[in-house]
Amino acid sequence: MGPGEGLVVLHLFCRARPGTDAEAVSAAAKVAEAAGQQVVTAALVGHKADMGFMLLGEDLAGLRRTQSALSSAGLEVTYSYLSLTEVSEYAQGLSPGRRQARLYPRLPPAGKAVFCFYPMSKRRGEVYNWYRLGYDRREALMHDHGATGRRFAGRVLQLVTASTGLDDFEWGVTLFARAADDLKDCVYAMRFDEASARYAEFGPFYVGLVRPVGEVLTLCGLSA
Amino acid sequence: MGPGEGLVVLHLFCRARPGTDAEAVSAAAKVAEAAGQQVVTAALVGHKADMGFMLLGEDLAGLRRTQSALSSAGLEVTYSYLSLTEVSEYAQGLSPGRRQARLYPRLPPAGKAVFCFYPMSKRRGEVYNWYRLGYDRREALMHDHGATGRRFAGRVLQLVTASTGLDDFEWGVTLFARAADDLKDCVYAMRFDEASARYAEFGPFYVGLVRPVGEVLTLCGLSA
Amino acid sequence: MGPGEGLVVLHLFCRARPGTDAEAVSAAAKVAEAAGQQVVTAALVGHKADMGFMLLGEDLAGLRRTQSALSSAGLEVTYSYLSLTEVSEYAQGLSPGRRQARLYPRLPPAGKAVFCFYPMSKRRGEVYNWYRLGYDRREALMHDHGATGRRFAGRVLQLVTASTGLDDFEWGVTLFARAADDLKDCVYAMRFDEASARYAEFGPFYVGLVRPVGEVLTLCGLSA
Amino acid sequence: MGPGEGLVVLHLFCRARPGTDAEAVSAAAKVAEAAGQQVVTAALVGHKADMGFMLLGEDLAGLRRTQSALSSAGLEVTYSYLSLTEVSEYAQGLSPGRRQARLYPRLPPAGKAVFCFYPMSKRRGEVYNWYRLGYDRREALMHDHGATGRRFAGRVLQLVTASTGLDDFEWGVTLFARAADDLKDCVYAMRFDEASARYAEFGPFYVGLVRPVGEVLTLCGLSA
Amino acid sequence: MGPGEGLVVLHLFCRARPGTDAEAVSAAAKVAEAAGQQVVTAALVGHKADMGFMLLGEDLAGLRRTQSALSSAGLEVTYSYLSLTEVSEYAQGLSPGRRQARLYPRLPPAGKAVFCFYPMSKRRGEVYNWYRLGYDRREALMHDHGATGRRFAGRVLQLVTASTGLDDFEWGVTLFARAADDLKDCVYAMRFDEASARYAEFGPFYVGLVRPVGEVLTLCGLSA
Repeated sequence: MGPGEGLVVLHLFCRARPGTDAEAVSAAAKVAEAAGQQVVTAALVGHKADMGFMLLGEDLAGLRRTQSALSSAGLEVTYSYLSLTEVSEYAQGLSPGRRQARLYPRLPPAGKAVFCFYPMSKRRGEVYNWYRLGYDRREALMHDHGATGRRFAGRVLQLVTASTGLDDFEWGVTLFARAADDLKDCVYAMRFDEASARYAEFGPFYVGLVRPVGEVLTLCGLSA
Repeated sequence: MGPGEGLVVLHLFCRARPGTDAEAVSAAAKVAEAAGQQVVTAALVGHKADMGFMLLGEDLAGLRRTQSALSSAGLEVTYSYLSLTEVSEYAQGLSPGRRQARLYPRLPPAGKAVFCFYPMSKRRGEVYNWYRLGYDRREALMHDHGATGRRFAGRVLQLVTASTGLDDFEWGVTLFARAADDLKDCVYAMRFDEASARYAEFGPFYVGLVRPVGEVLTLCGLSA
Repeated sequence: MGPGEGLVVLHLFCRARPGTDAEAVSAAAKVAEAAGQQVVTAALVGHKADMGFMLLGEDLAGLRRTQSALSSAGLEVTYSYLSLTEVSEYAQGLSPGRRQARLYPRLPPAGKAVFCFYPMSKRRGEVYNWYRLGYDRREALMHDHGATGRRFAGRVLQLVTASTGLDDFEWGVTLFARAADDLKDCVYAMRFDEASARYAEFGPFYVGLVRPVGEVLTLCGLSA
Repeated sequence: MGPGEGLVVLHLFCRARPGTDAEAVSAAAKVAEAAGQQVVTAALVGHKADMGFMLLGEDLAGLRRTQSALSSAGLEVTYSYLSLTEVSEYAQGLSPGRRQARLYPRLPPAGKAVFCFYPMSKRRGEVYNWYRLGYDRREALMHDHGATGRRFAGRVLQLVTASTGLDDFEWGVTLFARAADDLKDCVYAMRFDEASARYAEFGPFYVGLVRPVGEVLTLCGLSA
Repeated sequence: MGPGEGLVVLHLFCRARPGTDAEAVSAAAKVAEAAGQQVVTAALVGHKADMGFMLLGEDLAGLRRTQSALSSAGLEVTYSYLSLTEVSEYAQGLSPGRRQARLYPRLPPAGKAVFCFYPMSKRRGEVYNWYRLGYDRREALMHDHGATGRRFAGRVLQLVTASTGLDDFEWGVTLFARAADDLKDCVYAMRFDEASARYAEFGPFYVGLVRPVGEVLTLCGLSA
């Protein structure tokens, strides 16, 4: 039920409701990890959600069980995103090590506590239509885009996961940044790349701080 | 009240509310089947819905009764889609057997546990307007699109049902895939077909696992 | 407060809340009829609404009173549409009898139990702008569109009511069809007319079964 | 805190919640009038809101106090609009009397009981961009538009208030009509003016009957 | 976790729920100030929110704590915006004093009690695409835009904060105006600048009165 290769990724963004059971939230995260899932937890800011859970696992059923446990603990899931890790068609020449790192990332990375998630699609406009470009043109645009990203190596780590057919956009982008201005500088710089400027359509942004689940709960005003 | 030929299809996507009566949900599915409806049940992931019910039956009234029973059991219907099975204008030369299979599909297919539903319309843009193309051009585009789909035979089963005049988009697409990456690979490949790239507009995606209703309830944290 | 000629039409689409008083809903419909309003009731399918009430009356105040009675009975009005019957500018040569039938329709028609409502506007795009076409061109497009509709005479009855300045779209379209596939075939065929293909923008579709109010309540799981 | 010249206008559209205190609603309207605000009350139809309050006053603080009193009475404010009366740049040659009438209107007008409000902006499209037209062209378009409006003098009274920087659209349009078909005929006729056809973007429409607050409450099923 | 230079800015727009504890709201603002955050409070008008809190601080965690305290006091956060103070690429030649004023503003300014916030992005249209313009062209457009703004010096103070990668738009604009018509005149004038007319996309506007937190609570009908 999971993919043949790589991991299923479920981002869950949740609001704490009155009566949310902080201990049950913590327990749900621990049960998920015990079942082999990676669980990245973040305290978000703003009205969209209080807490983010990025779950990576081998099958959909396991991720659904974690979602059910978080809901049973009293959290309201207000947004979510389903995607798969992948080695994109433009990166087929990767070394085995880097290929493995994309398919089986180990998260969260050390020293990059600012979390960001947003979904995106490539535009199919009447003039600029990504899906009508030839492979070579797309590869060149993605190469330039990747070069911009590499300028932020060490400051921002990016994981792009695939979601065509799985969710409302075509990719999910998860960023881990050293600081909020690294994040802003990186995404701002990339917006000038032709791949983004002409062809990208962005969904909502979820931003916060990566912390252990207990600290996330405390920051959100719930004590375990 | 149903169609002269084929079946009425009602997709119901539901959220479990506190106090949902799992036994009453199970009973509603069984009553529907006893009344001659096909009932495909799926545990979904994410915030849009917890459970999906794909109902196929001969008349609207029967499907409405099943919806009422699910609501009475405590489920909140958060999204839905009404459509009809059909043999499209581009497939009038089908053999009687395949014609029957489109009008009266037997669902769910064996060995394809990943469920996906999304509605779609053909674009009526100022430059690219599907409904201003001649029949031959549309048929050629649909033929190419079908060829892409056939590359995924055995991995993904697709059922396209018609909804112009019945719901907010023009077609409902239900996919049953062997695994999540088969689903992703198939929909991604099809996006490059001119019929999709230039002319398709997609609604929200609902994805999960086909399971018997009891297992769906258990995965969603409700015990029957 | 009503129009000088013709009727005020208020479509109310309602969800049954826990505690909805079925007898009070029935009574509200009967009081409205006693006050001279026509009341068409339908059991809808899907998440948007459970019941539809199409009210035709001579003044806004009377229709508001009916809405208040339905709300007091516990129904939640989730969507609505306000419009007026009219003889359009393209139909000024109608015979007195047909003119009367448009201004003062008698609803619901016999033998057409499938109900459909959707609002629509004419597009004002940068290339195709309905309101920049001359009268003769608009009349020719509407004439062709009407011819498509007449191919479905006996299978689908259409009532177009005017709402520019009254609600968010420019017209409300109410269809009564013999069966769901008649409805689908009719709206699908009309989508290829240039008037629709190039110039129409559609709002949400509400579809269900015309039934007496008591049966509507029963189908929706409420007993009077 | 109010404008140097003219009035602050706050449209509040409210839904009656269970437990709304009709007497407190009436009292809030009376307190507002005693504090020098004009209060136009209307019973609306449809799902968007039950009651409309159009408040005109000299400062934001006073209008906020009225909103707080209405909320405290149990009403839920579901939509609102903030704007200022103004003499537009195209009407600088108005006589002192008409200038005064625009800046300090006395509402509601007698004999025009049908109420309509909608917000609007001028389009900034890639081909047709209002804000890239020269002043003379804009003035000519507005002059033609005004001429259409004047054809409805006596049947429809229009008040356009300015909201750029104050709310989500650029203007609020409040209409008072003799009857619903006067309203429809007027807005429909104006849609063919180039200023509307090419350049106008409309928000939601709120329509109902101007009545004293007590009658509004009664029509909405609340008794004082 | 905050930026290397400048401040993190979190706008929180809140609705008072029944049972909101006015003293706890006041206390949350005071605790935030004691922790080194600047807290600008405003009583808003309309349905979107009752109160606005503009928080400026050195790190995300501190701002999240303030949000949690406001939520715990019973406020519902209905909209929010996360951004950073910055010296834009077009303003790198600023004097150290003005540079400091942009990175570390002292708010609210005296004598400008009308508050306005809206987010915005630059358009990436098929004809007019801001991110495909060269730097010199963008700088010239921004220079002209700034000149319009300077015409309102003394009447309107503007703070533009950066949010690419942090929230759904690319910038947050906070305005403090002497009076509501200064605000309207300023934003209206700027809309004719090519930078706005052709390239700006605006989000929702939140408008109200800057007041100490106690007065904000009183204006919103809550007493501390």
